Amino acid sequence: MKSVLIVMGSASDAEALKPCARNLEKFGIPYKVRVASAHRSPDSAALIAKTAKAEGYGVIIAAAGMAAHLGGVLAAHTTLPVIGIPMKSAVLDGMDALLATVMMPSGVPVATVAINGAANAAILAAEMLAIADDELADKLAAYKRELNEKTAAADAAIEL
Amino acid sequence: MKSVLIVMGSASDAEALKPCARNLEKFGIPYKVRVASAHRSPDSAALIAKTAKAEGYGVIIAAAGMAAHLGGVLAAHTTLPVIGIPMKSAVLDGMDALLATVMMPSGVPVATVAINGAANAAILAAEMLAIADDELADKLAAYKRELNEKTAAADAAIEL
Amino acid sequence: MKSVLIVMGSASDAEALKPCARNLEKFGIPYKVRVASAHRSPDSAALIAKTAKAEGYGVIIAAAGMAAHLGGVLAAHTTLPVIGIPMKSAVLDGMDALLATVMMPSGVPVATVAINGAANAAILAAEMLAIADDELADKLAAYKRELNEKTAAADAAIEL
Amino acid sequence: MKSVLIVMGSASDAEALKPCARNLEKFGIPYKVRVASAHRSPDSAALIAKTAKAEGYGVIIAAAGMAAHLGGVLAAHTTLPVIGIPMKSAVLDGMDALLATVMMPSGVPVATVAINGAANAAILAAEMLAIADDELADKLAAYKRELNEKTAAADAAIEL
Amino acid sequence: MKSVLIVMGSASDAEALKPCARNLEKFGIPYKVRVASAHRSPDSAALIAKTAKAEGYGVIIAAAGMAAHLGGVLAAHTTLPVIGIPMKSAVLDGMDALLATVMMPSGVPVATVAINGAANAAILAAEMLAIADDELADKLAAYKRELNEKTAAADAAIEL
Amino acid sequence: MKSVLIVMGSASDAEALKPCARNLEKFGIPYKVRVASAHRSPDSAALIAKTAKAEGYGVIIAAAGMAAHLGGVLAAHTTLPVIGIPMKSAVLDGMDALLATVMMPSGVPVATVAINGAANAAILAAEMLAIADDELADKLAAYKRELNEKTAAADAAIEL
Amino acid sequence: MKSVLIVMGSASDAEALKPCARNLEKFGIPYKVRVASAHRSPDSAALIAKTAKAEGYGVIIAAAGMAAHLGGVLAAHTTLPVIGIPMKSAVLDGMDALLATVMMPSGVPVATVAINGAANAAILAAEMLAIADDELADKLAAYKRELNEKTAAADAAIEL
Amino acid sequence: MKSVLIVMGSASDAEALKPCARNLEKFGIPYKVRVASAHRSPDSAALIAKTAKAEGYGVIIAAAGMAAHLGGVLAAHTTLPVIGIPMKSAVLDGMDALLATVMMPSGVPVATVAINGAANAAILAAEMLAIADDELADKLAAYKRELNEKTAAADAAIEL
Repeated sequence: MKSVLIVMGSASDAEALKPCARNLEKFGIPYKVRVASAHRSPDSAALIAKTAKAEGYGVIIAAAGMAAHLGGVLAAHTTLPVIGIPMKSAVLDGMDALLATVMMPSGVPVATVAINGAANAAILAAEMLAIADDELADKLAAYKRELNEKTAAADAAIEL
Repeated sequence: MKSVLIVMGSASDAEALKPCARNLEKFGIPYKVRVASAHRSPDSAALIAKTAKAEGYGVIIAAAGMAAHLGGVLAAHTTLPVIGIPMKSAVLDGMDALLATVMMPSGVPVATVAINGAANAAILAAEMLAIADDELADKLAAYKRELNEKTAAADAAIEL
Repeated sequence: MKSVLIVMGSASDAEALKPCARNLEKFGIPYKVRVASAHRSPDSAALIAKTAKAEGYGVIIAAAGMAAHLGGVLAAHTTLPVIGIPMKSAVLDGMDALLATVMMPSGVPVATVAINGAANAAILAAEMLAIADDELADKLAAYKRELNEKTAAADAAIEL
Repeated sequence: MKSVLIVMGSASDAEALKPCARNLEKFGIPYKVRVASAHRSPDSAALIAKTAKAEGYGVIIAAAGMAAHLGGVLAAHTTLPVIGIPMKSAVLDGMDALLATVMMPSGVPVATVAINGAANAAILAAEMLAIADDELADKLAAYKRELNEKTAAADAAIEL
Repeated sequence: MKSVLIVMGSASDAEALKPCARNLEKFGIPYKVRVASAHRSPDSAALIAKTAKAEGYGVIIAAAGMAAHLGGVLAAHTTLPVIGIPMKSAVLDGMDALLATVMMPSGVPVATVAINGAANAAILAAEMLAIADDELADKLAAYKRELNEKTAAADAAIEL
Repeated sequence: MKSVLIVMGSASDAEALKPCARNLEKFGIPYKVRVASAHRSPDSAALIAKTAKAEGYGVIIAAAGMAAHLGGVLAAHTTLPVIGIPMKSAVLDGMDALLATVMMPSGVPVATVAINGAANAAILAAEMLAIADDELADKLAAYKRELNEKTAAADAAIEL
Repeated sequence: MKSVLIVMGSASDAEALKPCARNLEKFGIPYKVRVASAHRSPDSAALIAKTAKAEGYGVIIAAAGMAAHLGGVLAAHTTLPVIGIPMKSAVLDGMDALLATVMMPSGVPVATVAINGAANAAILAAEMLAIADDELADKLAAYKRELNEKTAAADAAIEL
Repeated sequence: MKSVLIVMGSASDAEALKPCARNLEKFGIPYKVRVASAHRSPDSAALIAKTAKAEGYGVIIAAAGMAAHLGGVLAAHTTLPVIGIPMKSAVLDGMDALLATVMMPSGVPVATVAINGAANAAILAAEMLAIADDELADKLAAYKRELNEKTAAADAAIEL
C-alpha cells in the first residue's frame, strides 16, 4: 500500500494532528511525518513535494495555520493529491487558514477539510487510497458501520 | 479506469460545471453527470451514493450552493472520496456553501475545493485516480508542465 | 396534543439542549429525544423524519453544529415543520452552523433560531402547536406576561 | 383554515415577496399583506401583531432588510409563530438582516428562513398550519413529490 | 441640564454599563437607568421612549446584545437622539448586535458606538448635551486634555 | 441655530451625500460642506475640527470609506459630537469603513450611522440640535408623522 | 537607484496593476514586471526571489488573488522587503487574498497594502527606497503636497 | 544606521510589542518607543510623524487596536514607510484593526503585518533598512538560515 506523508508547517501543531496519525494507524496505512514550512524552509518543502511520489507516497496531508500556504506550495510541486488542514491559530479562529488553503486558483487544487480537521484528513486519505484497494475500502465501510453503531448507542442512551 | 460521478444539486449550476467536464475529458477520464438534491430528491441522492462504488465510480464530485448539504449527504452513504464544490448563489458570494461543505464533523470528510472551483474539482479527481494509475499521473505531470509553460509565456509577454 | 421530536446530531450537545426540554415541559408538551446524524447515521435520520408525522409528532427540532446538515436532511423527508438550532462548536462561533441551517434552497425550509437557541426552539415549537390549541396559546400568553413581569421587576431593581 | 399575515417593512420589498404569495395561493392558504415598519410605523406594527390572532391569523410572515427588527417586534406582541425573511439590501448582502432577525434573545423566537427566502417562508407557514390540517399536509406531501419529480426530470435531461 | 436615560435590554448587562454611569457622573450629568426589552416588555419600551422628552431627558442610551432591536425601537418612538451600545453576547463577539443597531433604515437613525462601548456612549451623550451648554463643553475640553496628559505620561514612562 | 459641518474624505462621495444635504435643508438647518482627508490633508482636517465649535457649528458629519479614519480624526480635535457615515467603496461593501468608524477606543466616540447612511446622518444631527431647540424638535415630530403616514399609505395600497 | 520588481501571479491582473507602474514612473523608479505563480510556476517564482537582490532590486511587489500565496512564497526566498497586493477575484471581494497575504507567521513578513491597492504599493516601495535616497524622499514630499493641494482644490469646489 | 520609531496607541499594548523590540535588538537596530494616540493625543502623534525623518528615523512602526487609525495618521504626516500592526482587542479578534490599518485609500499606504504581528514588524523594518545596508542584509540572511535550521531540527525530531 502507498504511504501517506503528513507535513506540518510548525511543530506546534503536533498535538492537534495526533488524531490524524491515530486514524491512519486504525486503517493500517503507513505514514511519515515531516515538519516543513512554506516560509521558513521553502526549499525543503518543495523537495519533499517533488520527491514524494517517487518515494512511494500516495497522498500528502498538509497542516498549517494563519496565511496557510503549505498545502498550495506542496501541491505546486506534485501530482499527488494534497489534503489541506487549516489550523486554528491565536486569532480569527482559523478562517484565515481556511481561505488560504481552499481558495486555490485554477490548475492546482488542495482538498480542504474542516478547520482543525485532522481526524477527517486521515479518513479522506484512506478514501483516496481505497479507490484502488478493496481491502482498505472494506475497512472504511466497517468504520462507517462503527460510526453508525456508536450513534445508535448514543440514541438509545440519550435523555435531556 | 474508474469513472467520476458528477452530482449537482440543481441543473442551474450546469453552466458553471462545464470546466469540470472539460477537464475530465482532457485527462481522458470517463464521467457521468447527475442531478440530485439533498433536499428535493434525498432518496435519489442517497441511492446514487450508496451504489456509486459498485457501479464503477472511483470519485464523486458534488456541487451545491447556499446551505450546501449535497457533498456531506453523499459522503454519508459511500466510502468513495467526495469532492465538494461550493457554488456561489445570489447572496453571500458562496461563503455559505463553503462553510456548509468544508466544516464536516469528524468521521465523514468532504474534499472541498474553492468556491465555483469546478475546474479544480476535476484535477483533484484525476489526482486521486492517478494514485494507482501511472499513465494518468503522467498526464497530470504534463498538465503541470503546460501550466508552467503558459505562465512562462505570459511572463515573456507581460508589460504594464 | 402532538409531540415534539428533538433530534441532535451528536450526544455532546445534550447539555446545551436541556433548556429546550425544560421549556417544553413548562408548556406541558410531550417530547422525545433522539440522536441521529446526517452523516454518521443517515438512514436512521431519514427514517426518523419519514415516520415522524405518522408517529404523532407535530414539530421536529434539529440541533447540529459545524456543517449542520441535520435540519435540512430531516426537512427533506417530512412535511412537518423543522426547527433548526445551529450549535456553536470549537471554531467560528456557530456561524458555520447558522449558515448551513438557515440558507436552505427554495422548496425545503428550516425554521432557524439563534445559535445555541435551544430555549427558543421550544417556544417556537409551542407557538406552532398553539395555532390549533387555544389552551397552549393561553400558556404562551401567560409566559409572555411572565417575561414582562420579570423585566419590570428587573427595571424596578436596577442601578448602576 | 387560519390565514397567513404577511407584513413587509417597506413596500420596496413587494417584488421580492411575490413568490411567498404565489406559494400560499398554490396551497390554497388565505393571506393578507400589510406594510408596517418597526421604525416608521411602530404603533401600527404593534397593533397588527397584537390583534392578529383574534383576527384569525395562524402565522405571521415578516420581511425586512438592514437592521431587520420587524420580525422581533411583531413576535414581541403575539403568541403566533413569526417567520422572518431577512431581505438583501444595498450593502452586506443581507447578512445584517439575517443576524438581526435570527439572533433573538431567549423568550421571543423568530423562525428565520434564508436571505430573500420568500418562497420558503410560505412553505414553512404551510407546514405550521398543516400540523392540524391533514388536507394541507397532503398538499405539502404532493408538493414534495413534485419537487422530487422535477429533480428527476432535470436528472434525466442533464448534460455538461 | 437635561438628563440622560439609560435603557438596557437585560439586567445582565448592568456590570458592563457601569463605565457609562461613571462617566455621566464625572461630567455632572443627571441620569436614570431603566430595564426594558424590545421583545420581553415592548409596551414598556415604547412608553419609555414616547414620554422621555416630556420627562426632561435630552438623550437616550440603549444597550442591547444579539439581535439588538432596543435602540431602533426606542428611536421609533422619540425625536430625542438615541445612542446605541451593541453588547457582546455568548457568540459572534457582538457583531450581530453591531449590525442590528447601526444598519438602521432611512428615517430613524441610531447613533452607534463601539461594541461594549459604554464609556463612550456617556461621552457622546455629553457632547450632544454640550451643543447648547458651554459649561459642559468646557468639562469635555478638560476631559480631552486629561486624556492627552495621561497619554503623555504613558509616553514618558514607556519602555519595551 | 447652530450649523452642521459636513466633511467628506473625498469629493467622489459627493453624490452619495446629497440626501444628507437635502434632509438638513428640509429641517431648515444651515450647513457647510468641506472636503478634507485624514490622510491627504491631515492638517486641514485637524484645523477644521479644532475651529468648528468657535465658528458656530453644533455638529460635525464625517463621511469616509475604506480605512475610514476621518470621523475619528475629527473627533480627536473637537468636543462637538461627530457623526460618522461609513461609505461603501469598491470592495468589502463598506464593512471596512464601518469598523474603522464605529470601533473607536474609549474616550473619543464617533456616532456611527449605517453604511452609506447619509440621509440618517442629517436626521441624527437634527435630533442633536433639537435637544435645545423645541421648534426643530417639532419639525422632527412632524417628520416622524410623515414617515408614519407614508407607511400607512403604502400599507393601504400594497398587494402582491 | 535600486529597481522595483513587480511580480503578478496571473497576467489577468495586468490591467489592475497599471497604477503601480505609473506611480513608479512618476517617482522615476526603474522597475521590471514578471509573471510567476506560486502554484503554476513555483520554481520560477523561487528563482526570481532568490536572485532579486543580486540583480539590483531593492523591493519586490507581489500581486495575487484568491489563496494569494505569491507574496509569502517570494518572501520565503529573499531578504528584500516584499509588498503584497491582495487582488479581488470573482468571489469574496478579495478578503481571501487579504488574509492569505497579511496573516504571515512569525519570521517572514509581507508588507500588505489594501485590496487592489496597486497605486499604494508603488508609493510604499518608493518610501522604502527613499530611506536612503533623499532625492526620492523629496519627490515623495512633493507628492504629499500635491495630494494636499488636490484635496484643497476639491474642498474649494465642493457643493452638495 | 537609521533608527526605528515604535509608536503604540496605548501603553496596554506594551507586552504584546516586546517581540518587536527584541527582534530589533537581535538585528542591532537602534529604536525608540513612544505612546501616542491618533485620538487622545493627536497633535503629539502628528508631531512625532512630522519630525521623525529629521530626527534620524528610517522606519515607523505603529501598533493600535479597534478602529486603528494610528498607522494611517502617522503616514499622513511623513514620507517614511509606516508599518502597521493591527492589535487584537476585547472583541472581533483584531479584524477591526486589520481593516482599519490595511484598507488605506490611494496615496497614503500603511505596510500592514498580521494581527499582533509584532515580531514580523521588526523583521520588515530590518528588511527596509537593509535595502541600503549590506551588513544588515547579511544578518537577515543569517536569520533566514536560522529559521530554516530550526525547522530542520523540528523536522528531525517530530513524531505524532
